[in-house]
Amino acid sequence: MEILDTVNSPKDLKKLNKYEKIKLAEELRKLIIDTVSNTGGHLASNLGVVELTIALHSIFNAPKDKIVWDVGHQTYVHKILTGRKERINTLRTFEGLAGFPKSSESEYDSFNTGHSSTSISAALGMARARDIKKEKNYVIAVIGDGALTGGMALEALNDAGNSKTNLIVILNDNEMSIAKNVGGISNFLTRVRTRKLYNKSNKYVKRAVLRIPKVGSRIIKLVRKVKYGIKQLIIPNMLFEDLGFKYLGPVDGNNIEDVEAILRKAKDLEGPILIHVLTKKGKGYKIAEENPDKFHSTSAFEIETGKAKKAKKDDYSKVFGKKLVELAKKDEKIVAITAAMRDGTGLTEFAKTFPDRFFDAGIAEQHALTMAAGMAKEGLKPVISIYSSFYQRGYDQVIHDICMQNLPVVMCVDRAGIVGNDGETHQGLLDMAFLKLVPNITIMAPKDFIELEQMLEFAVNLGKPVVIRYPRGRRITRKI
Amino acid sequence: MEILDTVNSPKDLKKLNKYEKIKLAEELRKLIIDTVSNTGGHLASNLGVVELTIALHSIFNAPKDKIVWDVGHQTYVHKILTGRKERINTLRTFEGLAGFPKSSESEYDSFNTGHSSTSISAALGMARARDIKKEKNYVIAVIGDGALTGGMALEALNDAGNSKTNLIVILNDNEMSIAKNVGGISNFLTRVRTRKLYNKSNKYVKRAVLRIPKVGSRIIKLVRKVKYGIKQLIIPNMLFEDLGFKYLGPVDGNNIEDVEAILRKAKDLEGPILIHVLTKKGKGYKIAEENPDKFHSTSAFEIETGKAKKAKKDDYSKVFGKKLVELAKKDEKIVAITAAMRDGTGLTEFAKTFPDRFFDAGIAEQHALTMAAGMAKEGLKPVISIYSSFYQRGYDQVIHDICMQNLPVVMCVDRAGIVGNDGETHQGLLDMAFLKLVPNITIMAPKDFIELEQMLEFAVNLGKPVVIRYPRGRRITRKI
Repeated sequence: MEILDTVNSPKDLKKLNKYEKIKLAEELRKLIIDTVSNTGGHLASNLGVVELTIALHSIFNAPKDKIVWDVGHQTYVHKILTGRKERINTLRTFEGLAGFPKSSESEYDSFNTGHSSTSISAALGMARARDIKKEKNYVIAVIGDGALTGGMALEALNDAGNSKTNLIVILNDNEMSIAKNVGGISNFLTRVRTRKLYNKSNKYVKRAVLRIPKVGSRIIKLVRKVKYGIKQLIIPNMLFEDLGFKYLGPVDGNNIEDVEAILRKAKDLEGPILIHVLTKKGKGYKIAEENPDKFHSTSAFEIETGKAKKAKKDDYSKVFGKKLVELAKKDEKIVAITAAMRDGTGLTEFAKTFPDRFFDAGIAEQHALTMAAGMAKEGLKPVISIYSSFYQRGYDQVIHDICMQNLPVVMCVDRAGIVGNDGETHQGLLDMAFLKLVPNITIMAPKDFIELEQMLEFAVNLGKPVVIRYPRGRRITRKI
Repeated sequence: MEILDTVNSPKDLKKLNKYEKIKLAEELRKLIIDTVSNTGGHLASNLGVVELTIALHSIFNAPKDKIVWDVGHQTYVHKILTGRKERINTLRTFEGLAGFPKSSESEYDSFNTGHSSTSISAALGMARARDIKKEKNYVIAVIGDGALTGGMALEALNDAGNSKTNLIVILNDNEMSIAKNVGGISNFLTRVRTRKLYNKSNKYVKRAVLRIPKVGSRIIKLVRKVKYGIKQLIIPNMLFEDLGFKYLGPVDGNNIEDVEAILRKAKDLEGPILIHVLTKKGKGYKIAEENPDKFHSTSAFEIETGKAKKAKKDDYSKVFGKKLVELAKKDEKIVAITAAMRDGTGLTEFAKTFPDRFFDAGIAEQHALTMAAGMAKEGLKPVISIYSSFYQRGYDQVIHDICMQNLPVVMCVDRAGIVGNDGETHQGLLDMAFLKLVPNITIMAPKDFIELEQMLEFAVNLGKPVVIRYPRGRRITRKI
């Protein structure tokens, strides 16, 4: 680790030349693959943001400048570069480094995250606080295209776009949520991606021409001939600009120089800025590049093969998914809904078997739950599975849309109880307490796989709102 | 009520000619003003949607076609036209008509609402259920531009825009949330509004040309000469189209014929459609047109003057607002945040006195709470006031962003406990139960105004997350 050994803080990073930074990126990748292959954790997203993280800490001055990482599972590189490289082998272990940003761990972690889509709100709050305190510093939110499907990120974009506050939002677009990203925004980004990339020598306005779709070539040529003015004319209303942001990009997020150039550019602009950065999930580790979904979050694995060190046994999520397929074969009113957690909640087989009866709402628990209510109202039997701690995101929808209307939605609470190494933000400790007080609700908790199957069969035919909560993995409730 | 007397269901409405419908609109306005001046309720928004509601029930076939009203406070006209005109004088009274849609009241109320921003999710669920059941009917969500600032509406747009499902979203744009609407989307709509309106004789494509901003006239002329293709080219990426919707409009929502024409057009199109309808809040009652904010929701009033029948006395919200101004004068770190409820939560004076320290996040409780966390993290003392039942919308943000980080945000819970005539969706019955289990939280409940003032002063200096809950109006907790 020739270069990394010399880097103990972002200050050291700023002394490196571009070749050294490229070497550093290599070394960081190796360290992350080594670490996660032992500890388990979020691999693909961290490999994707190596260059972006180097560029951020080169161009900005954290901790004075505030970098807010959305979700925060992609902060391993950030942790290594901000004085925690010696402890990175303790990642996600008891008393070790957390898998997410923690202010208590480092002043470089400006805001604790864990759940998705909070970064723009937090950053806007910090930027407005800076303005009120009449201080000068940059505030940067780094958010993935997946997290951008979460409503609160869009609420924040709406508010920020209307403010005059200096705020930089970096959209880390890797075309993935945890699984393949979904929705209109994602489709929009795909269209934008086809444009030529911004790079350090390009003038920004050049991009305008590249957005013109294919129509009659005479028109194209004509429009291309006309300079700046008409180019601005062609793209006056793209999504982020419609919301009031200045849009920069897209830029190759795995090219340090290009990213640094666009970040420098952003520093000179006023108001809310959105930088569109394209990164490759799993970059540099072929097995993860090809399976970014599987390597989003992984247990310990063998580096050569990518295979898990411990064989996976059946768990509650799998048993749930298998039983639901069985029930759905007999009852065509059963549909399944996930909020971007198809694999995690065990619904992969269902999605393959019944593609027309499976719905991925994006990281959008609120919408997913109320959509389920709409389906139930029209006579379907929707089954939705969400992790315990993410039900906090859809609490009003459970109360106001499902339970007050007494609609037969089956709400599975996966990862209920202790979840271990994901840390405090992901523990499923509160669901029983906040769900039991909801009117018209029935709550069940199986003690083993067989009870889960029986409860699920009972629930889809109950005709009322029902919750089934079960733990992560294969933990068996003790018999007393 | 010459015409209205003949209308007992949408069927009767379909027999009327255009002149009779205009007369009907007049009669409906009179009935609504008469009713609400006695019962209190939502006035301005109902006056705004008279023509839109007539057109909807003329063109579509409810209850087979599903109309989902967002929030649902604007359904008085709908209730009158769907067999409930005799009972409209019982509006918002015990055992009378509810102020919001209720399936238990009428099969024309396809989905119960009350809280904002749920309609597109519910409608998309219903549309997908229809597809799975292989049935044929239209599903229409009617949502205001205010409700569109709510994250779950944006989550639903994102999902719907990516679907091939036939779904009609009517954006009822009156430039208002409850107060003046805020945010980038609102600004975007303002720009669109300046375009020429769609009307029954206009061809839809004509609008394309009208979106071209002023640049060199040579270009304009040239572009105008080229037909359809280039027109589509110029506007390929406006906000809703970016998300995957076909956009129709804008149309004058207070012109029945024009609205009917655009609704007919929408029926012929496939996939997700967004119709942009411009209406005037308070339309036809001058005092409400001029004060749409005040007449959004009103107590009983005198029609001639618009003055409340009962003089307003001090209430908890007002006492809170006044005390906060007093505290903020002495402590410049205090800032105030609302989620589109400036007046309702008593923050009007604060907003006037400290415009730079007041933030309206839109109908966006999630964003508002996490933004407060960001501000607290940077040393401000944010005070946020949200109604009890709307805290359900920001529950994860209270837990994950404010309390787990132990940040000093003062969370005021207004309308805690029984709220009366707004009905079941607005009762503040659950907040104590679901907040008391949150880590690091302190909950206080004043028994009178003086205690509220003392608790607020204590809270802003406590340095920890704190909740102060108080009831609607001036209810004094009994001394035991």
